[in-house]
Amino acid sequence: MVNFEYYTPTKVIFGKNAEEKTGELVKAQGCKKVLVHYGGNSAKRSGLLDRICKSLEKAGIDFVTLGGVVPNPHLGKVHEGIALCKKEGVDFILAVGGGSVIDSGKAIGYGVANEGEVWDFYAKTRVPKACLPIGAVLTIAAAGSEMSNSSVITNEDGWLKRGYNDDICRCRFAVMNPELTYTLPAYQTASGCVDIMMHTMERYFTKETDTALTDGIGEALIRTVMQSARILKENPENYDARAQVMWAGSLSHNGLTGCGTVGDWASHQLEHELGGMFDVAHGAGLAAVWGSWARYVYKEKPERFAQFAVNVMGVANDDSHPEKTALEGIKRMEEFYHAIDMPISIHELGVDLTEEQIQELAYKCSFMDKRTIGQFKVLNRQDIENIYRMAK
Amino acid sequence: MVNFEYYTPTKVIFGKNAEEKTGELVKAQGCKKVLVHYGGNSAKRSGLLDRICKSLEKAGIDFVTLGGVVPNPHLGKVHEGIALCKKEGVDFILAVGGGSVIDSGKAIGYGVANEGEVWDFYAKTRVPKACLPIGAVLTIAAAGSEMSNSSVITNEDGWLKRGYNDDICRCRFAVMNPELTYTLPAYQTASGCVDIMMHTMERYFTKETDTALTDGIGEALIRTVMQSARILKENPENYDARAQVMWAGSLSHNGLTGCGTVGDWASHQLEHELGGMFDVAHGAGLAAVWGSWARYVYKEKPERFAQFAVNVMGVANDDSHPEKTALEGIKRMEEFYHAIDMPISIHELGVDLTEEQIQELAYKCSFMDKRTIGQFKVLNRQDIENIYRMAK
Repeated sequence: MVNFEYYTPTKVIFGKNAEEKTGELVKAQGCKKVLVHYGGNSAKRSGLLDRICKSLEKAGIDFVTLGGVVPNPHLGKVHEGIALCKKEGVDFILAVGGGSVIDSGKAIGYGVANEGEVWDFYAKTRVPKACLPIGAVLTIAAAGSEMSNSSVITNEDGWLKRGYNDDICRCRFAVMNPELTYTLPAYQTASGCVDIMMHTMERYFTKETDTALTDGIGEALIRTVMQSARILKENPENYDARAQVMWAGSLSHNGLTGCGTVGDWASHQLEHELGGMFDVAHGAGLAAVWGSWARYVYKEKPERFAQFAVNVMGVANDDSHPEKTALEGIKRMEEFYHAIDMPISIHELGVDLTEEQIQELAYKCSFMDKRTIGQFKVLNRQDIENIYRMAK
Repeated sequence: MVNFEYYTPTKVIFGKNAEEKTGELVKAQGCKKVLVHYGGNSAKRSGLLDRICKSLEKAGIDFVTLGGVVPNPHLGKVHEGIALCKKEGVDFILAVGGGSVIDSGKAIGYGVANEGEVWDFYAKTRVPKACLPIGAVLTIAAAGSEMSNSSVITNEDGWLKRGYNDDICRCRFAVMNPELTYTLPAYQTASGCVDIMMHTMERYFTKETDTALTDGIGEALIRTVMQSARILKENPENYDARAQVMWAGSLSHNGLTGCGTVGDWASHQLEHELGGMFDVAHGAGLAAVWGSWARYVYKEKPERFAQFAVNVMGVANDDSHPEKTALEGIKRMEEFYHAIDMPISIHELGVDLTEEQIQELAYKCSFMDKRTIGQFKVLNRQDIENIYRMAK
């Protein structure tokens, strides 16, 4: 177990009708003017945006609105938000949506609270000193941005997708009503479930030992999301399954499932390049590469994959054959992905890679051959190329 | 699953040498003068107090010290602390110790930040408006006060032990180095493990349904603490077992293991009266009454106890006999208590109750017949009397 820090200051208001408390939560922050930030038309159509605005009005909170955030949120919209906030004197950002909207809100928060170009923070050429305070009303369970220190933005100039992590952007509060996720399409629901599971799996596949509590929490979380994903495939309006997934989404990425471990994150890096080159849902992209990554790396420590197989995938324990147990666990996870209509190859993701594209992806993923990825097994450009080829 | 709020703003610094960061953590709070609050001589003898004070000096932080906090901390010491803080202009409290020291620090924080008698808050006749900011350097894993909103104080006038819970007293930071708990006596270590397990078990035994994620987290936590307690009985300086127990202590009482459930807490109420009448360690007292409580209430929902038996105690699943499975789980938990030298009756706790004492305990525990306790099964004065008699 490695030393760790754990910091999750976000106040969570979870359950039916939770969004009714938004006005009073914002008021408690002592702010003067709020930016209500949202995505497409679904928040408008469903009436949620209206209810949020009325809740703010009832609490006597002045606000402006800015919609139009797209998945893989764009820097252009962030610039628009920064300009609006400066013009209107906004001192609190309320993100109404999923990870993209919250991430965009965090970027606007950095932009308003610091001089100069906000992209610098994502390009890692400068470090922000502050961030406007942010709150979230969550409508998509997947990214975990409502409790995480992460924000990922895409710069349209070169289509670079970059993340920046900093505790100063953690939400002051997160309003989570599972009912708000009832209308998510099946594919997006399943993709969100994979994203949530992977936030824990990236932290779980570690060479660190003696992390029993963190292991047990992570295993319980993954099992719960798998069980709920199967239920939601049949019944998207099952409150309890929606609730498990929503709460798991927050706990999976707020740091809890990585306490004492050293995370791997190679699957995320592999998927980020795919997502940059093709328009794919993040969770589906993770499902498409995970099995190939797992088979490429499991021999580094088969016992870890065997533990996963037994405790998460229900494979019978066989101490004398950890490799066999490990492989059975990987196979069963792929069977689960198929069961919820997720891909287990890049072809099934809807992309048929050429050999040139494989080489280009590996070149970019290795930062032009200048970095390795992964911790469970450190992967260089050639390894990355091999995995893309396996996952093809 | 019931609606819930979750708020754990405490920044945790966990691992070897964590206490070296105390000075900079306090400095980041922007305070002017610190009260270093501690218990007996062990913090002095071990050199920990010296190291903490040096860390503060190095960070340029002015401070005063106040030791002498006893287990079941006294109101008198709280008054002494309040007077000292006011005289010295203290604006931050650093508690170096276990739950008693942190609870005493929280009470001092309430007393300094509010007018009038601090006991009022514990007697529930007034509500505090604020609390001085508090940080903790943890030396005993048990109470979970370093991340909880709880504080329990004993008023020497009538020996009333009362708790007050409020988010405003949650620690700003908690420094946790498992090595600092190496020297705890075996009995105190085991008692702490029971206390930690019980903070989750009180929340776990609920009639609420559809709390899969919370259940799984709680089950993993209890299993981990049991495993670690057995290791520590043989080897008190096993770092990883100490680390699991310490981290479990915080997570068990910060709210995580109760998200979506309705807690029971009857065992705690039963033990509080015992602890008020006799000088017993809190965790040991809980172990002494739990089995009797469990056998008295399990028929309300045997399936819940059966789930506990299977997922925590390793009993074979037998859906057709939930009552049998439930009872086997209770028996095995008592066997575990014995295995770590904890009592499973009040007699084994070192107390031989007379019939008059049983009646007095039940009378006081029911607040002179004016309240019931418990949620899994609501218990009146007669029920309480029956359980004390069973546990005798």
